[in-house]
Amino acid sequence: MNNLLKPKERIDDLEYKGLKIIQNPEWFCFGMDSVLLSEFATDIKTNAAIVDLGTGTGIISILLSKKVNPNKIYGLEIQQDVADMAKRSVQLNNLEGIIEIISENVKKVNEILKPNSVDAVVTNPPYKKEKTGIQNDSYQRMISRHEVEANLEDFISAASYVLKSTGAFYMVHRPERLCDIIDLLRKYKIEPKRLQMVCSKQGKAPNLILIKGVKGAKPFLKVEKPLIIYKENGEYTKDVLEIYHKEK
Amino acid sequence: MNNLLKPKERIDDLEYKGLKIIQNPEWFCFGMDSVLLSEFATDIKTNAAIVDLGTGTGIISILLSKKVNPNKIYGLEIQQDVADMAKRSVQLNNLEGIIEIISENVKKVNEILKPNSVDAVVTNPPYKKEKTGIQNDSYQRMISRHEVEANLEDFISAASYVLKSTGAFYMVHRPERLCDIIDLLRKYKIEPKRLQMVCSKQGKAPNLILIKGVKGAKPFLKVEKPLIIYKENGEYTKDVLEIYHKEK
Repeated sequence: MNNLLKPKERIDDLEYKGLKIIQNPEWFCFGMDSVLLSEFATDIKTNAAIVDLGTGTGIISILLSKKVNPNKIYGLEIQQDVADMAKRSVQLNNLEGIIEIISENVKKVNEILKPNSVDAVVTNPPYKKEKTGIQNDSYQRMISRHEVEANLEDFISAASYVLKSTGAFYMVHRPERLCDIIDLLRKYKIEPKRLQMVCSKQGKAPNLILIKGVKGAKPFLKVEKPLIIYKENGEYTKDVLEIYHKEK
Repeated sequence: MNNLLKPKERIDDLEYKGLKIIQNPEWFCFGMDSVLLSEFATDIKTNAAIVDLGTGTGIISILLSKKVNPNKIYGLEIQQDVADMAKRSVQLNNLEGIIEIISENVKKVNEILKPNSVDAVVTNPPYKKEKTGIQNDSYQRMISRHEVEANLEDFISAASYVLKSTGAFYMVHRPERLCDIIDLLRKYKIEPKRLQMVCSKQGKAPNLILIKGVKGAKPFLKVEKPLIIYKENGEYTKDVLEIYHKEK
């Protein structure tokens, strides 16, 4: 399998149903946020057509392929070299029949997919506004972290375009953007239906939010119990261990 | 002091700086939500002019009079008999110099107060949409719980009218209305700045939200640590005990 690896790349074991992933430590490596989102999205119906907007390493698509038994997952990734690496991860897992990685900007989704055509969209978009925070990263890391090539509205607009009526949208993001997220979802006719705050420890402010919206649904938000990552002693909580080791 | 009491009414000790309140158990008695909101609003600046929209028993106004050293609090309450009881609670606490109870619908705030004239608005509005849930309560309880006489938009619109630029808005409500709240706050130029989820126990979904907005502010929401009410053994948590007994 090593012929799938380019210089500086490594293969990581996802410790879930034998899945593996190729990563380049000099670029943006996947984080727990992607793992949490893939678990949050396990209410996607069986045989769904799914779009993963900004798939990066392909982590969410690869996990979902074994979590929700989809018919098809399209993973869009603007960065050609990152998309190429994700494609090789798909090969590594023999998932070519399910996952198709497409190297394209999410803003051009209408050139690739038909409107109202998929059952679910998942996305872990760049969290930071274009000109905020430290930007001395590599270009690959910057695109993954900052809204350089596409902003929050572009991701949500693209999702609304491809989703069928009653199709589901799943996103992980930062709590400080919650108002923008809710505003934009409603602007694009995706009604927020589930929200979960993720806190590193009990008694700490959340540092991530998981949100599900449904296209064309009526208003009623279910705010779920906060998800706590670590116990006081620094070990993972039972909830997190279950996410990592479920159905192994 | 008993000449302040009407039949069926009782005096309850607020266990905070000697404050007391008159309540009629056949009407809507104040709950922990009001106590939590008054504590959440303690970043109101000293000498503020405050409006309490839908003051009910007057609970929030009475607590704030001793928590934030305001110059003036206007408490609007549509129900004449409830407003009359709140006025007598103000007298009972010798707070006539600070709190003015006005029996009027929040929709008519423009007939009572000048635009852009106050520093803060606090409100514990009815939580339920007009035609939802059980409605076999007394009319007093129904008005307190359901959006019969004024809905969420009326409360937020009234708040925006009276608030000065950079004035602060504080509300307690149900999590399922979060999207409506954020939408309406932005519609009326009040930017959500602080959000706290209140959970009855650790590991439970929140049943209340506390939200602060600032008129004309820039977007950036601080989601605070979830507030947990009860420990596993049913006792109040340290956080809640601190709220109840602070500065006694």
